[in-house]
Formats: sequence, structure tokens, C-alpha cells
Amino acid sequence: MGLVSFSELNAAIRHAFLGAGMPPDAADACARVHAESTADGVVSHGINRVVSFVEYIRAGHIHPRAAPRLVRQFGALEVWDGARGPGVLNALAATERGMELAAEHGVALIGLRNTNHWMRGGTYGWHAASQGFVLIAWTNTDSNMPPWGGVDARIGNNPFVMAAPRESGPVVLDMAMSQYSWGKLEVTRQKNEVLPFPGGFDTSGNLTGDPAVIEESKRLLPMGMWKGSGFSVLLDVLAAVLSDGLPTNGIDGLEAGNCVGCSQVFILVDPRKVGGADAAHRIADGVVDYVRSSTPDEQGRPPEYPGEGTLRRRERSLREGVQIDDAVWAAVRALGVPGGAR
Amino acid sequence: MGLVSFSELNAAIRHAFLGAGMPPDAADACARVHAESTADGVVSHGINRVVSFVEYIRAGHIHPRAAPRLVRQFGALEVWDGARGPGVLNALAATERGMELAAEHGVALIGLRNTNHWMRGGTYGWHAASQGFVLIAWTNTDSNMPPWGGVDARIGNNPFVMAAPRESGPVVLDMAMSQYSWGKLEVTRQKNEVLPFPGGFDTSGNLTGDPAVIEESKRLLPMGMWKGSGFSVLLDVLAAVLSDGLPTNGIDGLEAGNCVGCSQVFILVDPRKVGGADAAHRIADGVVDYVRSSTPDEQGRPPEYPGEGTLRRRERSLREGVQIDDAVWAAVRALGVPGGAR
Repeated sequence: MGLVSFSELNAAIRHAFLGAGMPPDAADACARVHAESTADGVVSHGINRVVSFVEYIRAGHIHPRAAPRLVRQFGALEVWDGARGPGVLNALAATERGMELAAEHGVALIGLRNTNHWMRGGTYGWHAASQGFVLIAWTNTDSNMPPWGGVDARIGNNPFVMAAPRESGPVVLDMAMSQYSWGKLEVTRQKNEVLPFPGGFDTSGNLTGDPAVIEESKRLLPMGMWKGSGFSVLLDVLAAVLSDGLPTNGIDGLEAGNCVGCSQVFILVDPRKVGGADAAHRIADGVVDYVRSSTPDEQGRPPEYPGEGTLRRRERSLREGVQIDDAVWAAVRALGVPGGAR
Repeated sequence: MGLVSFSELNAAIRHAFLGAGMPPDAADACARVHAESTADGVVSHGINRVVSFVEYIRAGHIHPRAAPRLVRQFGALEVWDGARGPGVLNALAATERGMELAAEHGVALIGLRNTNHWMRGGTYGWHAASQGFVLIAWTNTDSNMPPWGGVDARIGNNPFVMAAPRESGPVVLDMAMSQYSWGKLEVTRQKNEVLPFPGGFDTSGNLTGDPAVIEESKRLLPMGMWKGSGFSVLLDVLAAVLSDGLPTNGIDGLEAGNCVGCSQVFILVDPRKVGGADAAHRIADGVVDYVRSSTPDEQGRPPEYPGEGTLRRRERSLREGVQIDDAVWAAVRALGVPGGAR
């Protein structure tokens, strides 16, 4: 693990994206999002995805020069086709357009189909909330988890995001529908550790926290068991219905890779049209203070609000530098060298 | 347990509500919702709530003749004040108004504040989906669960509903943010059983499935642990912000009873404005078929889609009669007798 400054990190990713054929504006925006996710501690969807993102471009799964296209418009509702462009740029465009429409109509919904992996979902929550908007958004994915009661993967982990503005740091929930990610299982196995709580079933249907056992059975646990399974199903139906796009089974059918051709929904609301910005901040402050007032459990740490850890990590990264795995950093920098790391 | 016909059940509840001072139209609508929830198998928010609903009216917490009032309107967004009227009627009115606005704008959001317990949240999902609309709705509640990392109750179980139309039965998710309800704990304890999975912590912070131990510690488990806890926080912030109403801490502050003065959000979308009703049904069918195609686990039952069990139970209730606890049935019928069961 080394420490890299934010600007150095940003520049290296940008360089890699330019080398992969992204236009400068697109490379700028995409690199910034990857660098911010990394600084926020979400390396799995930041620096650790740069190499595979470039590989997806080279394989033709992500079209680096594509721009989203409006396909339907009705009042406060719009459907966009992502044209298989970079998922981050499509999702940012949908968030921006949603804010414009919400300022006009109070609430807006953007259905985005035929797009690609949006990386860290929280990105769009932070983006909207920092501009005073409420965001509710989700994506479907290829299948990576069995539904409750089944053993074969038929549902996605379909990350779901909710964000509310707050003066001293927005409240941002960013959660996938699995209790743990496949990435968390891999990291835990490599450290020869077990998960703190069960994360899946073994091949006989017993709950287990042993990552290798779950990797073998492929029976990842939905968060909240039957609840996360059902939630995932609804997120998939609504993502596809509200974008007239592909549901999980359609993404699986493409066999093109992780989240290629996926569907997303962005709901934006302008709380200034309800009780005003001050009231919104005051309510969020009150909820946060109330949560924090619960006596800490045996772990001895005060309960946190969603987004608190991210903000703390970001501030540390900007102060001390961003923690990055040396091998990952070397691979990303090699991408920027003409002819390197192909 | 006895079997009662739907019409007899409906009439008895209506009679009880009329006796409590509800106008005939209100008693009709409210009784029908309680009877339907009971027939659907959700007795906890159906017949089992009739006596306490009448008690809340008599205590002045629910105003039986109140009507919701529009307090703010901006495009596709409206804020209503529930005037502490019956929560079911306020929520039905919000759903109806949301469908009107969504037909006009594609999407609509209704914030409803100062209302009361909406009973079964799924009611509004079934109602909207059966008329071709997508619904996303939630309510906050008084605190009934510690946030993740804490021991004192500071968050509500904040039921969350998502519904999508489908020709052969809508897809309806209706889930609270606790892994199990307090009611489920009570019923399980009375049967001298343990929960199938951990439902909370003991007083030393160990996960347990023993309902009596959780009832003692009061440390109910959020569904998906930290995930359901964070989701509950966001649902509370957004319910209060988008209705300019009370968050959980404000409801607790009233000390007026279960969900008195709570805040709700109803988002309605018209999928006919996206890809058409046929496309929406086809997508939902495809997702349902895919989920069902997962090989059953060790329990040997095919995976179900959210809403499937409800529909099956409803059809049985209408065919064979509705199963009702004898003591509960006697108490409800006594309410209909002048001067009875006060």
C-alpha cells in the first residue's frame, strides 16, 4: 500500500482513459469519478476497476465515444438510451438531467437503458445531494446471486442509492442487495479470515461465513435474506420497465460481461419545493443526532449515519494522500504508456 | 381459528368502525382495506388491528372525520396534511392523487404528513399496480429498533413498498426494516419456538433467535444488519423532508402512540408512458419466470416472486373463507354492539 496524492491519482487514471480512446472531456469526467471513489475508500469501484474498464473498451463492450440519446419524453419523465457508452458518464448525465427536470416539475424520473456499469452508485447520490437535491436511484446487473429458496443465480445485487442534502455532509445510502460482495469474499479469503456474519450457504444449504465455501457453492446470501431477494426482484422489474430496457435475464442473455447493457432509474426531487432547503437540512440534522444518541453497543463506537464513514475517509485521503495497492497502481500507470499493458 | 366469509368479515369491521364514529363512506373504505389485508393473510394489520384502531379513535389520536388537505403544489409534486385522520384513508387518497398526477406528468410524488398508521403498506402497492401504475411508497414510524452499533431504539421499522403491474398478478414488495416484527417475536414465543434465523441481540450483544431474549434486550435486528439500519435512516429523512413532516424523533416526541403523526411518501409512475402496458407486463413476466427457474434449495419449494404468496392466500380465503382467531373475532363483533367492548 502506498499513498498517492489525489491529483496524481486523477492524472494517471485520465491518462489511462485517454490512451483507451476516450475523448478528453469524457476522460476528465470519468477519471474524476474513479479518483473520488478511490479517495472515498471505495477502491473496488475506483482504481481497481480502471484496468477492466479499459479492457471492456478494447473488447467493444463499452463505446468510449458514445453519448446518451433521448428516446421518450412525457412531462417529468424521460427515457434515455445509453448507447453502451461509459456507464459513469451516462449515469452522470441522467442525474444532471433529472435535477433540471426536478427543478421544473418538483420531481423527475429518468429511465436509462442500454448502459454500462455505473461503478460506485453513491457517486450520483453525493453529486445530487451536494446540489441540494434528493436522489433515489438504482441499477440492475447480470445475475450474481440465487433468489431466496433457490440455488442458481437468477437475481442481481442491483445496487440501490438514496441521498438527502445536509449542510455538514449529505446522508447517502449506497447498498447492494447481497449481504457481502463477491469482492469482499475474495479479500477475506486471501487474508485467511472469515466474514463477521454469514454471507452465504454451503452446498448443503447451511449458512456460513467461510468465503471459500460460498465461492464454491456460488450461493451468496441476499441482505436480509428473503427481504433483499424480493427487493432485488422489484428493482430489476422497475429498472427494465421504467427504461424499457433489459432486465437481469436479458443482460445474462447478452453474455457480454459485467453489467453490459444494464438498465437504471434515477428519481430526483427538489426539497426546496417542499419545505425549503433549511427545513430539509434541519430534519436531516435531527435524524443524524438522534441516531448518534443511541448508547454504543459492545463495539464501543457511536452509531453512524449513512455517508459518515465516506466523508471521514475522503477528508483523510485529501489530507494524507489516497491509499492504493502498489500492484494496482503500477498496472494503471502502465496503461498510460503507449503500447503498455495490453 | 374459525372460517368467516369475506362479506361477513367486511360487514363486522364496518359495523365496528361506524360504531366508533366514522362516517359511512369512511367506514366502508377502511373496513374493506382491513378485510382485504386479513383475507391476504396479513391479520396483524387487518382484523387484529380493529380493536386498537377504535381505541385510538376514542383516545383522540385518530380523528375519524378528518380529511387530508393540500398544503403545497409544484408541478408533479404535492404535499398533503393528513390532519391526523385514519391513516388508511389518507394513504389511499395519496395513492389516488398520485395516479392522477402521474397520468398527467409521467411521474408524481405525494408527501403526506401528520397522518396515522397506514396498516398494511402493500395495500397501496396492490391498489396502484392493479390500475397499471408503478408505486414506490414508504412510511416512517416511532422508534422501535436500535440503529446498527447502538443499543437504544432510535430508528423505526419504516415499511417500504414497491409494486409493478403484471397481467397474472402484480409484483408487490412490502417489507419493514426489521428482520422480524415485534408481533412475529410474540407469536413465536407463545408457541415456545425459536425464530428460523437470528432476530436480534441478547443483552450481551450476541445474535439470538430466542424471541423472549430479544423482547428483554429490546435489541431487534435490522434486516440485513447495517444495511437495513442505514435504509431506515434514509427512509426517515426522506419521509420527513418530502412531506415537511415529522421524522421518527418527532413522532417519539409526541408520545401519542404507534405511528401517530407519521410522515409518508408516495411515488407513482405511469409505465404506459414508457414502453406501454404490454411491454411492462412482458418484462415482469420474464423476471418472474427467471426467478422461478432457479433450482429449489433444500426446502424443495420453487422460489417465489414478491406478492405470489399473498395472491395464493387471497384466492384461498375467497374460496374457503377467511381464517380468523376466535377471540379476535368475538372482540371485533362486540365493538359493533352499542355500548359493547369499551
